[in-house]
Amino acid sequence: MPVPGPGYSITVRVDAPPSASAAGDLTTAVGKVGGVLTAFDVVGSDAEAIVVDITANVASADHAEDITSALNALPGVKVRKISDRTFLMHLGGKLEVSPKVALKNRDDLSRAYTPGVARVCQAIAANPEDARRLTIKRNTVAVVTDGSAVLGLGNIGPGAALPVMEGKAALFKKFADVDAWPVCLDTQDTEEIIRTVRALAPVYAGINLEDIAAPRCFEIEARLREQLDIPVFHDDQHGTAIVVMAALRNALRVVEKNIENCRVVVSGVGAAGSAIIRLLLRRDPADVIAVDIDGIVHTGRENMDPNLQWVAEHTNADGMTGTLHDALAGADVFIGVSAPNLFGAEQVATMNDDPVVFALANPDPEIDPLEAQQHAAVVATGRSDYPNQINNVLAFPGVFRGLLDAHARDIDDEMLLAAANAVADVVDDRLNASFIVPSVFDNAVAPAVAEAVKSTAVQATGEKQAK
Amino acid sequence: MPVPGPGYSITVRVDAPPSASAAGDLTTAVGKVGGVLTAFDVVGSDAEAIVVDITANVASADHAEDITSALNALPGVKVRKISDRTFLMHLGGKLEVSPKVALKNRDDLSRAYTPGVARVCQAIAANPEDARRLTIKRNTVAVVTDGSAVLGLGNIGPGAALPVMEGKAALFKKFADVDAWPVCLDTQDTEEIIRTVRALAPVYAGINLEDIAAPRCFEIEARLREQLDIPVFHDDQHGTAIVVMAALRNALRVVEKNIENCRVVVSGVGAAGSAIIRLLLRRDPADVIAVDIDGIVHTGRENMDPNLQWVAEHTNADGMTGTLHDALAGADVFIGVSAPNLFGAEQVATMNDDPVVFALANPDPEIDPLEAQQHAAVVATGRSDYPNQINNVLAFPGVFRGLLDAHARDIDDEMLLAAANAVADVVDDRLNASFIVPSVFDNAVAPAVAEAVKSTAVQATGEKQAK
Repeated sequence: MPVPGPGYSITVRVDAPPSASAAGDLTTAVGKVGGVLTAFDVVGSDAEAIVVDITANVASADHAEDITSALNALPGVKVRKISDRTFLMHLGGKLEVSPKVALKNRDDLSRAYTPGVARVCQAIAANPEDARRLTIKRNTVAVVTDGSAVLGLGNIGPGAALPVMEGKAALFKKFADVDAWPVCLDTQDTEEIIRTVRALAPVYAGINLEDIAAPRCFEIEARLREQLDIPVFHDDQHGTAIVVMAALRNALRVVEKNIENCRVVVSGVGAAGSAIIRLLLRRDPADVIAVDIDGIVHTGRENMDPNLQWVAEHTNADGMTGTLHDALAGADVFIGVSAPNLFGAEQVATMNDDPVVFALANPDPEIDPLEAQQHAAVVATGRSDYPNQINNVLAFPGVFRGLLDAHARDIDDEMLLAAANAVADVVDDRLNASFIVPSVFDNAVAPAVAEAVKSTAVQATGEKQAK
Repeated sequence: MPVPGPGYSITVRVDAPPSASAAGDLTTAVGKVGGVLTAFDVVGSDAEAIVVDITANVASADHAEDITSALNALPGVKVRKISDRTFLMHLGGKLEVSPKVALKNRDDLSRAYTPGVARVCQAIAANPEDARRLTIKRNTVAVVTDGSAVLGLGNIGPGAALPVMEGKAALFKKFADVDAWPVCLDTQDTEEIIRTVRALAPVYAGINLEDIAAPRCFEIEARLREQLDIPVFHDDQHGTAIVVMAALRNALRVVEKNIENCRVVVSGVGAAGSAIIRLLLRRDPADVIAVDIDGIVHTGRENMDPNLQWVAEHTNADGMTGTLHDALAGADVFIGVSAPNLFGAEQVATMNDDPVVFALANPDPEIDPLEAQQHAAVVATGRSDYPNQINNVLAFPGVFRGLLDAHARDIDDEMLLAAANAVADVVDDRLNASFIVPSVFDNAVAPAVAEAVKSTAVQATGEKQAK
């Protein structure tokens, strides 16, 4: 059962008797059925009744109903209205588009719009590169989805994906002053998605692909990178891989191991898993063992798609076969981006000394982190209620800030690895087994990542031009 | 030759001698070559020199050069730097995307993004109509162009069109609190444009087509209206037609004529002309004579495209043939959306008593308005330096405000005519021959238009549901 959290917070307005014990009765009633009270506001009062807004974190819709029933059951208490604070926050959408220029009088209008704007248009027509200076292209990224693999919700479609893309855009602005715009496409056809993104690219200086199902996402990313002169980043792949690599670097510092001597098991070979494996291989681990629903990935397997084929050819040097449990025996690191509850403490016990366990399946990890802790030296999850949260917010805002500032035309593994190192380095001497990545609210992260990506991108451009 | 205006304003920084006459010498030099000085700021001074920023409106790039040469020619004066205030205003783009919700702490994040956002997504997946309540779709319009007919500049492409679309979006926000986003498409293929707009529609509650060349624009508009469940408006057609109809209504009040008795000549049968004719016909004028580059449009003409064919069949009841000058003889109203300098005062003299002349070609009208005034009772242009400016800004912000507030799924002629009446009515008892439309800065216009469009849309929806 889910636990109450601020993601599901309700405010219940009740009429209650004006007795001395009313407040106590109400809060006790909420607590008894497991609600976590976060605010108690008396919003009205007269001789006969008080009106109270009770705000509480709850676990589910049923749980919310339990709470209102418990309140209604109190003598003299009547529930008037229940509002869901999350829905209130989303009402009318979470973004707005605002002018950065004054439009107060005729002169402003003459410069921002006709006739003055004509000269700006002509300058860009003469030198298209000027669009990166004289238009929103300078600072704007498209957050593109087809709604096919949204959060843990699956294929809910473009309209239902929009609240997530808005949230993403809000995070871009908040953490790195990037103007990001949701592009939710009413098609799940690979060719149509590629064609559409290509058609709308002139406004943007970067494309952030989001929540597009594998293996379609690989082809879309590869083809767009080929066709566009702006960087294409798939957050579910590259964002996750960056933060995992940052966390791994620090986790190995905690256990004092070198990656060259580590066997790393990666569970899940979808978007995130594949990208993690690719970056990981750049760091020359002793071996990587990839595992999916059919067991350990090896070159002898049949019916592999091109992505899986690539993974089989580049991992598992000894041709190991078997299950996830087989793979874990003797491994130094487990990285899971797969499914809930795949193993327990007894499997962690079979790993090498001081094992590192990243159980990132959301909302329920591959292993209960409390169980993992029994034998693991470092544990990380994707959840905000455990230490060491692997959260993409640590990567994507700074990555795009750096790409935009470098006027980058593409993105490569060097930039991703530079970003990972930057995230890891922010931890610095605060490092310990419960603090291998910085907080998502650490303001030092995005600028550090941006600087690392920018300088790597500028260097890459210089090298290309030198050739 | 163009006249100096605020759309082209430069700031020249000069070193000048610290003499008592320096200021006078500098301003005189600017004035002598025709620059219109708008600011004179001493930004630095010592015993040997003063540093002055001279801001002036100029007519053209050559003119700007004349001014700097004139300044450089003064004894002891040296031009340091010339900056173009219009370009400075556009630097970095004119829009930004901002969160409307706080993201200060973990609780905010839990509601705006994961895990809280999941419930909002699920609500929309269960009831797609909720996207109009719980996402930016509520208040967001796409400003879509292919860059094929931008201002008077022609086919400059999507990147060079972006500054105009940004300006448009800025006006949407400023005048009607509509969030509008530029969509500049890297294709000029009709089918591809339709497919792309359809694919990106989930984020938007309205489509504003902009600066798309005729006749392609007609098919795109018609097909998108058929395929989408949100209103599609083509500003070059419908925006212009609304403001023309508003101006015409008031002009005919000035000359005390009924439209039923008026012969109206429309010069130009592109996007704007065709839309004006269509709305005009809804008001039953005595006759409409359409004229294009090949002369008067009549059913006997060959090689007409479907749009022209439609116009031929619905206008020119007597089958008149000949030139624009022939059409003008005896006409009550001239509406030009065509080309510069097509006729003179002598043709206006051949019109019926108290003729109305709307010469809207930009930047140079079909007839010099000063010449038109010799015989016309009412003259309007598209220019901001004459009275009676026919400016789409009077229409589009309010139209979309009304459509969004009505949750409209389409737009029809009734709504356009309601908008036209609303614009006209704002003038009220201030009406005279030089004031037939309100100022673009009149804050009463957008709300009046919005209210008229909203109530017409709500009524239309009610009638449809009643059927």
